[in-house]
Amino acid sequence: MKDLASTLERFSAGDRRALARLITLVENRSSAVPEVMRALYARKGRARIVGLTGPPGAGKSTLGDRIIACLREQGRKVGVVAVDPSSPFSGGALLGDRVRMQAHFLDEGVFIRSLSTRGRHGGLARATREVVQLLDAFGFDDVLVETVGVGQTELDVMRLAHTTLVVLVPEAGDTIQVMKAGLLEIADVFIVNKADREGAGRLKNELEVMLGLRGESRWRVPVLLTEATAGKGIVEVVEQIDAHAAALHAAGGDDGSETRVREWVEILRDEVEQRLSLVLESDDFAELARDLREDHTDPYSAALAVLKDPERLARALAGKRDRSGS
Amino acid sequence: MKDLASTLERFSAGDRRALARLITLVENRSSAVPEVMRALYARKGRARIVGLTGPPGAGKSTLGDRIIACLREQGRKVGVVAVDPSSPFSGGALLGDRVRMQAHFLDEGVFIRSLSTRGRHGGLARATREVVQLLDAFGFDDVLVETVGVGQTELDVMRLAHTTLVVLVPEAGDTIQVMKAGLLEIADVFIVNKADREGAGRLKNELEVMLGLRGESRWRVPVLLTEATAGKGIVEVVEQIDAHAAALHAAGGDDGSETRVREWVEILRDEVEQRLSLVLESDDFAELARDLREDHTDPYSAALAVLKDPERLARALAGKRDRSGS
Repeated sequence: MKDLASTLERFSAGDRRALARLITLVENRSSAVPEVMRALYARKGRARIVGLTGPPGAGKSTLGDRIIACLREQGRKVGVVAVDPSSPFSGGALLGDRVRMQAHFLDEGVFIRSLSTRGRHGGLARATREVVQLLDAFGFDDVLVETVGVGQTELDVMRLAHTTLVVLVPEAGDTIQVMKAGLLEIADVFIVNKADREGAGRLKNELEVMLGLRGESRWRVPVLLTEATAGKGIVEVVEQIDAHAAALHAAGGDDGSETRVREWVEILRDEVEQRLSLVLESDDFAELARDLREDHTDPYSAALAVLKDPERLARALAGKRDRSGS
Repeated sequence: MKDLASTLERFSAGDRRALARLITLVENRSSAVPEVMRALYARKGRARIVGLTGPPGAGKSTLGDRIIACLREQGRKVGVVAVDPSSPFSGGALLGDRVRMQAHFLDEGVFIRSLSTRGRHGGLARATREVVQLLDAFGFDDVLVETVGVGQTELDVMRLAHTTLVVLVPEAGDTIQVMKAGLLEIADVFIVNKADREGAGRLKNELEVMLGLRGESRWRVPVLLTEATAGKGIVEVVEQIDAHAAALHAAGGDDGSETRVREWVEILRDEVEQRLSLVLESDDFAELARDLREDHTDPYSAALAVLKDPERLARALAGKRDRSGS
């Protein structure tokens, strides 16, 4: 990418179009991504990362909007990533997010971007982490990561957050489902939205009982009631985000060394994975692919044949630089 | 694994404990898996693979049980894989599946196994495919693949099936959610379960309208009403599974050459991924890991350093062979 340096420069100068451009590179899994992220790595690390998850229909988007408005009143700049792993077929942002983007279009203090599935699963979690890092490096005070559903990817994505908000509605009711979905383990703050509906108090009680059963911990997970459409209970949510951030700060936290090592392995794996498909389609392995197509060998034998010669594979992988790096 | 040959022999002779043993190898991502799958590759390809998916609470397990019973009456042997990507924290099969396994304990014509998340995501889709292939190679006439929820992994898993059944309940109601979850694209048969409840007819109509909007195709996706707990509508489901299989057969289908190539790429990706995870345990990369821990380099620079050096990359790809292969 010939003008990458200038895009990075404009990014550093606060140009939102440069930010959008780099996010697109990440989303398209461009081969330039590691270079971009390396260049910006030192700039990140200041933003507060807040996750927002819960089952479809819990009102996450509305709640997210209210939280953004509340943070904006405090003068904080907010970047938003809406992660949608569940729509591999739609191939783009949901209509709802487009509408939302327009609502904040004139506010320079807010930046909203949707990310949907491209290719494999791990890829989305990594792309999300990288977009969060870009927003962080760009200078947003808070980065809000929203998910559409509550599958495994969403749980992976939530590992990025310093503070994770889990939104439920009274109808979700069955707390067993909450446990099954792994939400109890990831929630730093529970929010029962649409709290004017029947069963809100009961759900709150059930959650508090379940949380109580987990025994002592430094942070007591609060269960809040909200009515996002009416703007009720939002201030309390933001107060708890602040409180949790303060608790994390007081606990000291880690120095990030293990996170860096884990990221390294993940990046390496993803890059190799991306290059692998290209390598296997290349002349290097054309004969093997032909044998496979013509049923002279099976996929496992063919895989073992490649793995038995790591030098050959490594040379092929190291040579594959340009995928979508234009 | 010293007695792998004897396990394979007992598998081929129809020993269910050998089957269970090989499934455990797959579940634990043993390094022996490619060898096992290669040895059995020629035996597979005869089973009909039926997927069963839908949101939690739609009654999939009960419906699955009724379908199994119906297939058993036809004298067909049925293998079942219950895939549960949503419970990374439970670390094992759900209680419900254990109960179900007991119900079929005395029936040699049924084999049920739960698979839950181990490690990364792609891994579960591959493990499921391999367990399906094992059940196929073992000689089951039908392999039923059930999922717990409807996230991305479940959609990946459903790509394995020849015929995919999507189960909904009237309360799911909102057909927009169905589209959002990508269910419209994967369904070969829609089932509205708990059809005695209010809204069943309306949901059926909405689904039929949506399906009609997609335009012509060879197979017209039917929308069936069932009450699984009362055993109502099950025969019709099995009839549609038969009809869809017949339609696939009539269409001729592909020769499997692209599937083989895709499998090859997937197997290699997973193997490479597993091996790269081991780089941290290797002395070869100790220095790089230390630099990272001590913040002398960042994860992206460290990853690029490995990727740019084929010899080093080859050593990483060679990995360690004996991971869980005992």
